[in-house]
Amino acid sequence: MATIDLNCDLGEGFGAWSMGDDAALLDVVTSANVACGFHAGDPQIMLATCRLAAEKGVAIGAHVAYPDLRGFGRRPVPTTPDELFADVVYQLGALSAAASAAGTRVRYVKPHGALYNVAVRDAAQADAVAAAVAAVDPGLAVLALPGSELLRAASDHGLAPISETYADRAFQPDGTLVPRAHAGSVLHDPAEIAARVVRIVTEGRVTAIDGSEIAVEARSVCVHGDTPGAVEIAAGVRAELVSAGVELRAFA
Amino acid sequence: MATIDLNCDLGEGFGAWSMGDDAALLDVVTSANVACGFHAGDPQIMLATCRLAAEKGVAIGAHVAYPDLRGFGRRPVPTTPDELFADVVYQLGALSAAASAAGTRVRYVKPHGALYNVAVRDAAQADAVAAAVAAVDPGLAVLALPGSELLRAASDHGLAPISETYADRAFQPDGTLVPRAHAGSVLHDPAEIAARVVRIVTEGRVTAIDGSEIAVEARSVCVHGDTPGAVEIAAGVRAELVSAGVELRAFA
Amino acid sequence: MATIDLNCDLGEGFGAWSMGDDAALLDVVTSANVACGFHAGDPQIMLATCRLAAEKGVAIGAHVAYPDLRGFGRRPVPTTPDELFADVVYQLGALSAAASAAGTRVRYVKPHGALYNVAVRDAAQADAVAAAVAAVDPGLAVLALPGSELLRAASDHGLAPISETYADRAFQPDGTLVPRAHAGSVLHDPAEIAARVVRIVTEGRVTAIDGSEIAVEARSVCVHGDTPGAVEIAAGVRAELVSAGVELRAFA
Amino acid sequence: MATIDLNCDLGEGFGAWSMGDDAALLDVVTSANVACGFHAGDPQIMLATCRLAAEKGVAIGAHVAYPDLRGFGRRPVPTTPDELFADVVYQLGALSAAASAAGTRVRYVKPHGALYNVAVRDAAQADAVAAAVAAVDPGLAVLALPGSELLRAASDHGLAPISETYADRAFQPDGTLVPRAHAGSVLHDPAEIAARVVRIVTEGRVTAIDGSEIAVEARSVCVHGDTPGAVEIAAGVRAELVSAGVELRAFA
Repeated sequence: MATIDLNCDLGEGFGAWSMGDDAALLDVVTSANVACGFHAGDPQIMLATCRLAAEKGVAIGAHVAYPDLRGFGRRPVPTTPDELFADVVYQLGALSAAASAAGTRVRYVKPHGALYNVAVRDAAQADAVAAAVAAVDPGLAVLALPGSELLRAASDHGLAPISETYADRAFQPDGTLVPRAHAGSVLHDPAEIAARVVRIVTEGRVTAIDGSEIAVEARSVCVHGDTPGAVEIAAGVRAELVSAGVELRAFA
Repeated sequence: MATIDLNCDLGEGFGAWSMGDDAALLDVVTSANVACGFHAGDPQIMLATCRLAAEKGVAIGAHVAYPDLRGFGRRPVPTTPDELFADVVYQLGALSAAASAAGTRVRYVKPHGALYNVAVRDAAQADAVAAAVAAVDPGLAVLALPGSELLRAASDHGLAPISETYADRAFQPDGTLVPRAHAGSVLHDPAEIAARVVRIVTEGRVTAIDGSEIAVEARSVCVHGDTPGAVEIAAGVRAELVSAGVELRAFA
Repeated sequence: MATIDLNCDLGEGFGAWSMGDDAALLDVVTSANVACGFHAGDPQIMLATCRLAAEKGVAIGAHVAYPDLRGFGRRPVPTTPDELFADVVYQLGALSAAASAAGTRVRYVKPHGALYNVAVRDAAQADAVAAAVAAVDPGLAVLALPGSELLRAASDHGLAPISETYADRAFQPDGTLVPRAHAGSVLHDPAEIAARVVRIVTEGRVTAIDGSEIAVEARSVCVHGDTPGAVEIAAGVRAELVSAGVELRAFA
Repeated sequence: MATIDLNCDLGEGFGAWSMGDDAALLDVVTSANVACGFHAGDPQIMLATCRLAAEKGVAIGAHVAYPDLRGFGRRPVPTTPDELFADVVYQLGALSAAASAAGTRVRYVKPHGALYNVAVRDAAQADAVAAAVAAVDPGLAVLALPGSELLRAASDHGLAPISETYADRAFQPDGTLVPRAHAGSVLHDPAEIAARVVRIVTEGRVTAIDGSEIAVEARSVCVHGDTPGAVEIAAGVRAELVSAGVELRAFA
């Protein structure tokens, strides 16, 4: 029987501001990428998100980011490897304590936004992230795109590398994502998205943007939480997977 | 043979700004109250301070504070117990991870500035601090003034309460500190300060501001790091204690 | 013909987070209290809000606050008069420049949240606000509750004091607002709210919570923007005022 | 009689942290680049610096920066032209109000750190800075390296472009500064620095790092305030200029 993990960014409010419907999404996903205060999240939101995740049996990951609250972590703030190492240690530690206080623990790390994009292709930044994670807890996993520098660095530092793919993104024939700037890069039809995810999970294949059939390797599928219709899309993916006999289970 | 711990606030720079001579102070004290980013300290400074403390065999404590970088944690930001619980969890977690990455661990918590003053006398704020510490790591100690709500709360939450006194502060006949606003509240003569500390440690007694002799209970003595002549005063206290045959050793 | 000003808090998003429907509210109100970055608002949001207000002919006021982004300015951060003077100068200057860049200018100052509440009753904080406003631009008005220390301080510093009342708040027999903690303090029925405002504007009278009739003095009425149904309530107030032959016009 | 302006970065403390000896430097320089809160400076420090500059007859410039307190504005935070426009408006407005409250006004803008370096060579970022300055006050000057995109943009936006050079930096034969990473890029000998500045001001010439003689165009000379011996070097430059019969006067 096939199993898959669904992950989603959560806890991305700050103070009086909220983002996304965390409670609804935690009924759908099996892993929660929880913001750690650098791009979103504050200590109370982090704690509340960990408590809710624990209550619903959802695995917690540290969604570490560059320090950029105003830019929501989408700006690649120039950061030296030493700075990045310290920043990841700090965020991972803060979330780990919140998880402990919620009676659970952090299972993995997935960088957010600009840090994710940079750590996918930049070896030095990827190594800084992985080294920081290993220094805090060598038993953690790292979640990222297959073939990324980040998964390579995770392996190099003795961490479990977990490959993920995206539910609503189009692929190029070489298996990489179509950049967001290109037409057709993001899928919007819930039924189409759900059907694609089922095929990725059950067959390991997907149709690329040029119509060719390609292989996709993923132990987790990322669904989005902050776009219009996000909950419906995510719930649709889950329902189709269940219908197809796939077990939804956290990888961690 | 008498033993005593000397504690000092450290790691209180931020970014390009520094405060105090941490390296020199770490040669004098046995416990370092390390800033956690809310009143001072940033992830790199926290990590560097933990590494230096580990190298010099100095015990690390989390110097948690109200969120007030600009006010250096000296303003009692109105904070609900739930907010404070979450804020202490966050700071303690962040420093714990820095300590882990430095190959050591956090041993105790001592609130900073306004939070210290409030937690000494306010039961609800003291309970929030102690509950947060216990939720993250029930093996930690809490350092504060004897008779304080904070030490009471620490005991209530199963944490080790450690009483401290101040090397350079005058006492009232009832054993409490003379408030800073009063003349004579702070001592400045290094020799006098050192002699008082030796008597507190070896005899458990000190001369109050009215000339009366009072008992002082302390397992740790706080020396300051950010005042003029701070290193000299701290070094003088250490030297006199050693001369008097007192062993300097972290309480934790 | 009676005239009245309607004011509302606006520009209260931050970075990726939004709050309220500013565009809709700017079609209803005649004065916009624009956040200045201390409790909400960032430089881009401030500029965009000023541009939209200018386009719609809405007067701009500086919605200055204590420095507390995470607490949305609702926590009375202990601030000395000197600190508060400097903080108001800073925020007012920043918004004034945004207004200039949008081809308009700031007309008045209305403190936000905790600062409003404190400046209503605390003479020293009220004086610090008024002195700061006068130091930057003595031609500005100050908007606050009648009988408040803030309006007294505004007069003392040569600024125009403008009294406001609240559309959706119940009154005590002495004319002050029923505290929010009390049952019945906030009205929710749009028709009732609109009718009350019309009576305040045209008759200068309102029914207090005990059923007695009292006088209410106001040159501006505050409508809320961030509560459920806020836009509908505000639009209802405007429509009823127009039906009653009242002219809606900024006081400034 | 030759005249020259000496400019220096000032007001670069934050909260409890200080940097440099502002009072001493304000006795030496004729123009103060005052931090605006994004890389350093807080509202009280800005106000105090403006008051001290006003008292000593030193012209005030807005030392605008990328938003990066922890990195002291030395990291080129990726910022779109629209973001940068808004950020410069905000900072310039905040400092302008502080200057008004101090009884004076801002005369010019000089970007700080990474923003300076980027605006020297990047036309879009330079245009955003200049457009923001012009939108707030078209009567302001802009201070930067000769031949820079920033001075070009200042001219394009109707602002007075003012060229500056550095007292302690070595030049390449083409007149640009030797990058800091290169040996010999920064001069340390106070007498040599002073002599070079006198020659630049009185002859318009300097010896480049390869020994060749080159022309240097400058209406202002930047001296540093935060390096060891900064005050002595700056005072030495001033004394040598006075000895050489040069009048020290703000360009603005």
